Amino acid sequence: MSDNSFGRLLRVTTFGESHGPAIGCVVDGCPPGIPLAPEDFSHDLARRATGKTRHTSQRHEADEVEILSGVFEGRTTGTPIALLVRNTDARSKDYAKIADQFRPGHADYTYLHKYGVRDPRGGGRSSARETTMRVAAGVIARKWLADRFGVQVRACVSQVAGLVPGRFDWDAVESNPFFWPDAGQVAELEAFMDALRKSGDSAGARVHVQALGVPPGWGEPVYGKLDAEIAAAMMSINAVKGVEIGAGFASVTQKGSEHRDLMSPEGFASNHAGGILGGISSGQPIDVSVAFKPTSSLRLPGATVDRSGAAVEVVTTGRHDPCVGLRAPPICEAMLALVLMDHALRHRAQNADVPPVTPKVPGG
Amino acid sequence: MSDNSFGRLLRVTTFGESHGPAIGCVVDGCPPGIPLAPEDFSHDLARRATGKTRHTSQRHEADEVEILSGVFEGRTTGTPIALLVRNTDARSKDYAKIADQFRPGHADYTYLHKYGVRDPRGGGRSSARETTMRVAAGVIARKWLADRFGVQVRACVSQVAGLVPGRFDWDAVESNPFFWPDAGQVAELEAFMDALRKSGDSAGARVHVQALGVPPGWGEPVYGKLDAEIAAAMMSINAVKGVEIGAGFASVTQKGSEHRDLMSPEGFASNHAGGILGGISSGQPIDVSVAFKPTSSLRLPGATVDRSGAAVEVVTTGRHDPCVGLRAPPICEAMLALVLMDHALRHRAQNADVPPVTPKVPGG
Amino acid sequence: MSDNSFGRLLRVTTFGESHGPAIGCVVDGCPPGIPLAPEDFSHDLARRATGKTRHTSQRHEADEVEILSGVFEGRTTGTPIALLVRNTDARSKDYAKIADQFRPGHADYTYLHKYGVRDPRGGGRSSARETTMRVAAGVIARKWLADRFGVQVRACVSQVAGLVPGRFDWDAVESNPFFWPDAGQVAELEAFMDALRKSGDSAGARVHVQALGVPPGWGEPVYGKLDAEIAAAMMSINAVKGVEIGAGFASVTQKGSEHRDLMSPEGFASNHAGGILGGISSGQPIDVSVAFKPTSSLRLPGATVDRSGAAVEVVTTGRHDPCVGLRAPPICEAMLALVLMDHALRHRAQNADVPPVTPKVPGG
Amino acid sequence: MSDNSFGRLLRVTTFGESHGPAIGCVVDGCPPGIPLAPEDFSHDLARRATGKTRHTSQRHEADEVEILSGVFEGRTTGTPIALLVRNTDARSKDYAKIADQFRPGHADYTYLHKYGVRDPRGGGRSSARETTMRVAAGVIARKWLADRFGVQVRACVSQVAGLVPGRFDWDAVESNPFFWPDAGQVAELEAFMDALRKSGDSAGARVHVQALGVPPGWGEPVYGKLDAEIAAAMMSINAVKGVEIGAGFASVTQKGSEHRDLMSPEGFASNHAGGILGGISSGQPIDVSVAFKPTSSLRLPGATVDRSGAAVEVVTTGRHDPCVGLRAPPICEAMLALVLMDHALRHRAQNADVPPVTPKVPGG
Repeated sequence: MSDNSFGRLLRVTTFGESHGPAIGCVVDGCPPGIPLAPEDFSHDLARRATGKTRHTSQRHEADEVEILSGVFEGRTTGTPIALLVRNTDARSKDYAKIADQFRPGHADYTYLHKYGVRDPRGGGRSSARETTMRVAAGVIARKWLADRFGVQVRACVSQVAGLVPGRFDWDAVESNPFFWPDAGQVAELEAFMDALRKSGDSAGARVHVQALGVPPGWGEPVYGKLDAEIAAAMMSINAVKGVEIGAGFASVTQKGSEHRDLMSPEGFASNHAGGILGGISSGQPIDVSVAFKPTSSLRLPGATVDRSGAAVEVVTTGRHDPCVGLRAPPICEAMLALVLMDHALRHRAQNADVPPVTPKVPGG
Repeated sequence: MSDNSFGRLLRVTTFGESHGPAIGCVVDGCPPGIPLAPEDFSHDLARRATGKTRHTSQRHEADEVEILSGVFEGRTTGTPIALLVRNTDARSKDYAKIADQFRPGHADYTYLHKYGVRDPRGGGRSSARETTMRVAAGVIARKWLADRFGVQVRACVSQVAGLVPGRFDWDAVESNPFFWPDAGQVAELEAFMDALRKSGDSAGARVHVQALGVPPGWGEPVYGKLDAEIAAAMMSINAVKGVEIGAGFASVTQKGSEHRDLMSPEGFASNHAGGILGGISSGQPIDVSVAFKPTSSLRLPGATVDRSGAAVEVVTTGRHDPCVGLRAPPICEAMLALVLMDHALRHRAQNADVPPVTPKVPGG
Repeated sequence: MSDNSFGRLLRVTTFGESHGPAIGCVVDGCPPGIPLAPEDFSHDLARRATGKTRHTSQRHEADEVEILSGVFEGRTTGTPIALLVRNTDARSKDYAKIADQFRPGHADYTYLHKYGVRDPRGGGRSSARETTMRVAAGVIARKWLADRFGVQVRACVSQVAGLVPGRFDWDAVESNPFFWPDAGQVAELEAFMDALRKSGDSAGARVHVQALGVPPGWGEPVYGKLDAEIAAAMMSINAVKGVEIGAGFASVTQKGSEHRDLMSPEGFASNHAGGILGGISSGQPIDVSVAFKPTSSLRLPGATVDRSGAAVEVVTTGRHDPCVGLRAPPICEAMLALVLMDHALRHRAQNADVPPVTPKVPGG
Repeated sequence: MSDNSFGRLLRVTTFGESHGPAIGCVVDGCPPGIPLAPEDFSHDLARRATGKTRHTSQRHEADEVEILSGVFEGRTTGTPIALLVRNTDARSKDYAKIADQFRPGHADYTYLHKYGVRDPRGGGRSSARETTMRVAAGVIARKWLADRFGVQVRACVSQVAGLVPGRFDWDAVESNPFFWPDAGQVAELEAFMDALRKSGDSAGARVHVQALGVPPGWGEPVYGKLDAEIAAAMMSINAVKGVEIGAGFASVTQKGSEHRDLMSPEGFASNHAGGILGGISSGQPIDVSVAFKPTSSLRLPGATVDRSGAAVEVVTTGRHDPCVGLRAPPICEAMLALVLMDHALRHRAQNADVPPVTPKVPGG
């Protein structure tokens, strides 16, 4: 079933457990000729990494990527690109005590019902550690999209618990550890996170991810709708509970006359559609909003049952993120880039013969 | 690429344009031995159909299903089930005037950029008419899920524009034309819809869809997460702009200690997870919320461009729904049922050898 | 699992039983803009049809193709093309007596073990009637390959029982009912077939299928090798027991110095590879040879068992082909064309950026 | 397109170049609970390995398998199993001189046309080195098939150039370096191979691969026929030019009354079908015959062109097999096992509800 694979023409398969010897991925279907070196992965992996500030998990992984195949003399060859990252800071002893308990809100209970067995060390396969390889694979997609089409993918945290940005400045996002678009609120966020960490509780967050420069015409219009595949991509990230395209749930209370994005020779008047109409890109920015639940790995005790069915109280120790959403922007970017590259490849397979269409509405 | 297909082990392929000779589907991978007759489709197709009240499009289609294959002596044989519905009330002349204009908020513009050509009659392939076959295919999935596992799938409209139910009574849902869970508000809804229709504008809606009785253990834990595939399924429905599982976007403002669903030998204390943990069913009800935008087919004129690039004003005539969300519950149910049946089949492929796991938390 | 579908980017799904109401197919992933009309299917369907000479089954089917979708104003739109052929000459009573017996060499026994049920009318889904839709789908692929690349696909019968052509003249193939490349042997073949039919027995045959004009570079080099997918395509045709590419089994007794096709600026010196190296087309003609077993539908009685397990003697009545291979060339052509079109689409998805490569060996 | 993946429910993805740092694979979809340790791979990898006798390539690889994921406490967990083998004896300098020449009969020319670039070191991705990982993945499938169903897969070399076994003794096969079923001919084979190696030429071979104990009912009856997928699996192995099921090409000259396998309460009277009817297993042994061409890596000079298009003479140095077929039995076994396991999983997905069918013909 290949459920550990993602994409159709650009196919990413990830493997590895949180506390196993390594994690890795195979990227198949990548066009030849793309410059690629191990250091290309450093920037985005560092953006996703834990342990760089006190606000994230204190696990320190080097996250050094070894390219095992698919690259010759610094360029992709069209054969599968295998990437490997060794796990170096796995402390499995932290988890021994909970191997026989089901942590509320975790996949412990469901994995056991599915497989009859589970690897309890660090959450095994259900750990967010898997997302490292999504980010790595996304690096390739981002490079290709940028080089070939000028497409840029970016993301920020647009809400933490009840806090929303006072102003929205994309330039601020990469200059603080919270991917936060309002530099003036960073101190407030730090205080919030310090208090949260001290409390032993966790917080939810919202991430906004955006693609700029996507040409009109990408997407498959029925079950392979661009927005449908984006929704699946985002919902496949650990802790995600909701996905919106464009106006999202706000469209429930809009009138049609308000929601529809009028067009003129000067461009689109608005972008409630979020850059996708009928499952196909319109040329406007693609806007996606993603809800991350508060992680269930808390130091606060909680009622649960053990494998014998008895009521117990569980406390999750180990190293965890009090707000997983804070590390999610690079992951969301990667997933959006992978969906877009896949659709770009599908588009040219079927539609390479289609002559350029006029008119092209500016910004669309 | 098969973008007109859905599912992995239970694979539904739909075809047909809104105003073409027919629409249809092929359901491949259905187990043998399921009783199936043309009349099995009537109930759900009638629930989805237009033209039954003044509140929906006035297109009247018989929606008679012909079973072309895959059934012998009243039971499925395991071979592909082809279903055909002839279009009988297509009025293509209504659309002639807009063939050269791009209706704002429609797929006209994006289809043309993708394909270089489009069938303008009734929206062609982008029409919600395609969802007829989703509902038909869903009938088979619902039968199988109910017979084999006692799984029930149901849906209601949980918001129309700013109106939310005062009370939530599942028994009320099927007794009014709005799939509305509060019988006491039906008159209010009728008045709202009458005013809306008269205004020429349209309204958004929210649909809640739920599966009861899903056993723990269904779902694939990384890219084939049950919630990821549900999100894609819902987002592939025309006019959907957002999908939530369980607490959805509300989880952004929850604390972890509030969001996590505590367990005891008596059962789960809450269901913020919406019945899915780590991409795998927990045994609790699966709860999904879906945002439908207000349809862009309005009688109110709107600014757009024509194929020459010139600014024009467009008015959509033809027969349209002022609130497409009102007909969406049967479609959402069908999509959820198809995802669940597909995962049930996948589950037993990989996990047929897994012995029953204890404990099983009640209601989970 | 979609086992009734074929292809990746050009995806053909067939449905229908031999004696059901209709057979049909959905062709998904076809590029837009291809001229297509119902009459385009007539020629190849007639070439495959039964009942035109005394040497094939006497079932007479009109095989009129209805295009249900995917074509607008005479051209494909990029949406799924559904084709329907009604069955008009099904005589199911012929099969009533054998519903409880397993015909030796048929799928009766294996279908029952797989599904627990089978449609005994005319072989149900296992009938060669299904290949009608392969030929229909192949028409689209052949058109596209010819128009876009000048690729021609053709086939002949290259052996019947012990008879091989005395000379090989492609021009003779379409001028006799046996697709036979030696016009001087047609009388001999007729006499052979008359005697065979009279004897109540059946004969095997070999079909040679060839593609001319395939450019170098099509094919995926590991599990999607062009020859691997051709082998699967041919072996999926009813009654096929063997497939060879190029020299095929003769390569077992060749020396490497004899088998390898030397190259010079003037071209390739031979084509033992059959036009495929490392799973990728070389530009030489693609040569495939296919073994068709003698059909097991005989008038000669044979020992078998019935559903109670008792020994019985079975005689297959009904209308059957004494040599199914004689009708196979159009089917083999269709399958080869479908594989090639699929690979052409895959090629341009991944390799659209690859600049033309020199040198190009003539004929290669 | 994931052409480096194989299988549907049991999905194997391989990666790695002949002279790159490593080769590896990811096996996804494997049921949980299967005992698995690195040493389980040793036996079959050693059977496939080069350098053990003078009759194969003199490359010496340790072929030590590292299990990177998917196994916990000695058993599979249901998550992807990643296997890694480091390349240790790659001598890339041997290939430097041919980087700009196209070796006749190799994939050099076609890879360059496909990708515009190729890794010339040891054939890169087109090297038979890739088959190491097929054998490794096949080990898992063979274990599962044996444990769950008692299915045994085995293979032998049944022809080398013009030499065929004088007698057929499966017990002899594993006791000589040629997988040859007639112990009395081993000396003759050794002499043949010595002379061949000395001549600088290469020889073709035929491999017979067989599965015993496959229950009736596995296989998908149209495009996923068991024999179609076996044909693709075998044809995807380097150097394969032909595949036969059961009687194969011999069925061309058989009468139907001779080919069909009669049944009685005592069993099948013959097995011309090779254990597959209508694409579904009959319960008889599955018999497959595979043609391996003589490798094109010869020390004998051959005419070709270089990248400038000029005529040149090429000599392949490096370390090569004079008869690749001699190492192929473990690879053919692995591919057959992988196809069978995949179909076993597909079978139970769709047909888990089918009650056991009577009668079951003995040996079938």
